Amino acid sequence: MRLLNHRGQIMSNNWVTEQYLPSGSAIGLRIHSRLHAETTPYQTIEIYDTTDWGHLMIIDGCMMVSDRDNFFYHEMMTHPALFTHPSPHNVAIIGGGDCGTLREVLRHPEIHQVVQIEIDERVTRLAEEYFPTLCEANTDPRAKLLFTDGIAWMREAEPASLDVIIVDSTDPVGPAEGLFNESFYRSCYAALSPGGILVQQSESPLAHVELIQTMHAAMRQAGFGARVTLPFPQPCYPTGWWSCTLARKGDAGLTQFREDEAAMRTFATQYYNPAIHHAALCQPEFLRLALQD
Amino acid sequence: MRLLNHRGQIMSNNWVTEQYLPSGSAIGLRIHSRLHAETTPYQTIEIYDTTDWGHLMIIDGCMMVSDRDNFFYHEMMTHPALFTHPSPHNVAIIGGGDCGTLREVLRHPEIHQVVQIEIDERVTRLAEEYFPTLCEANTDPRAKLLFTDGIAWMREAEPASLDVIIVDSTDPVGPAEGLFNESFYRSCYAALSPGGILVQQSESPLAHVELIQTMHAAMRQAGFGARVTLPFPQPCYPTGWWSCTLARKGDAGLTQFREDEAAMRTFATQYYNPAIHHAALCQPEFLRLALQD
Repeated sequence: MRLLNHRGQIMSNNWVTEQYLPSGSAIGLRIHSRLHAETTPYQTIEIYDTTDWGHLMIIDGCMMVSDRDNFFYHEMMTHPALFTHPSPHNVAIIGGGDCGTLREVLRHPEIHQVVQIEIDERVTRLAEEYFPTLCEANTDPRAKLLFTDGIAWMREAEPASLDVIIVDSTDPVGPAEGLFNESFYRSCYAALSPGGILVQQSESPLAHVELIQTMHAAMRQAGFGARVTLPFPQPCYPTGWWSCTLARKGDAGLTQFREDEAAMRTFATQYYNPAIHHAALCQPEFLRLALQD
Repeated sequence: MRLLNHRGQIMSNNWVTEQYLPSGSAIGLRIHSRLHAETTPYQTIEIYDTTDWGHLMIIDGCMMVSDRDNFFYHEMMTHPALFTHPSPHNVAIIGGGDCGTLREVLRHPEIHQVVQIEIDERVTRLAEEYFPTLCEANTDPRAKLLFTDGIAWMREAEPASLDVIIVDSTDPVGPAEGLFNESFYRSCYAALSPGGILVQQSESPLAHVELIQTMHAAMRQAGFGARVTLPFPQPCYPTGWWSCTLARKGDAGLTQFREDEAAMRTFATQYYNPAIHHAALCQPEFLRLALQD
């Protein structure tokens, strides 16, 4: 899930196109038809039926999730962190209304409870209707879906109560801006148990290096002992290349993970495997230079 | 360099967009103006000045090279193969008219000679004019630029005379189709010295899995003892994710490389480094399953 206001959206000749103005680039998908459109108190949500990418959700003109390529994002937002933590029992997801991240988290048998805090209930209700496979774990008894403000929820979370926090948010402008600063990271830090891991979607490594640098600095200021940015392909997001950033409370670091258990995982993946986990930890040269402490 | 005929190109409101019909997806870049257009005996070539990606070359409606993102492609088409070969002295490039691959090859001090065989001289002449940094090694005394048919050239190449062959071609339709089959691979195999490496651009891992499978099978049939596909980001190509496939003559394999020398390299890179080399060898789960022998 991601969103940025300063974009345009063009629909013509059966193509829907998102123009991402900050990088002067655009991505389009060919469609059969628009299936749904509504304006909620928070945003405008559209659902399209595409020719090659299944269903597509667009929020305020920005591509959020398609059937065909969401596996990159949802697998990388979850499995690296969950296989790095030795015993991830309690997880919170901030945002994540399409429920794809929730589904991936619940594939891990160690999970006791996942609380998902999404501000706009309509995103989830539309996902249930148009992306049923992403929502197939919503009725899992370990899942708890809340529809309220994630920043306030995190501020009031019980200290040291969470093993992993996943910020599956829109882009850092407008309502989500408060999810990308030191104040929010301090709330997360307090809510995490020792060795706990914060995961945040961190935009395009090519288009948003400065944002990633700022994020690392704020996470360090908030007390996180280790931070690493994992790039991965994401064809329907600007530049086709995206990332998540992990930050860990304590000194355990983020380079070791339960590799044998990742190799023996009992669920299917399309992108993630232990080799890809190692690969994602490798930094492109320009990013390595940009993130040198 | 890549090309596929069955696409459309749209230019409107100062955006130039390539619609890639086989995957129902499109990529657009915002432009200031079109700087040049001409039709050669082989194709139509256009040069644009973009707002955020520098100069952009489009051939027959397909984005070929931009100033901003060509480093992914050119570095990955060259450095993994050249650091895998123990002593790459003699290299041939088939296609590669923008000369970016040639420049990266010539960064390696072990090189004695590089022959580039591009069928359309106008591509290189326009690259010299509009992409001067890509062409800065064209006058290197180790470089030899030929403008002729690469398939015929390879058929007549002296046996065992080349250490690395890089097929920096357009997509496998039309004139370049003959660069993607067993017959051409047999010519390459014969021209390679023992332990020699063939590199071929191999399209999008997401959109072209079947092509990559076919390519691996043909390379195996042609005698290559090892084959591996390396994915990398490429924002201006369809799906934003691309790959090259390496094949090696003999039993030395493709997983070991001169890692210390790659780490101590005397030239700057933007994407490649030894960690990224290891990362690129890691196969996404769906690709690993698709390429199991």
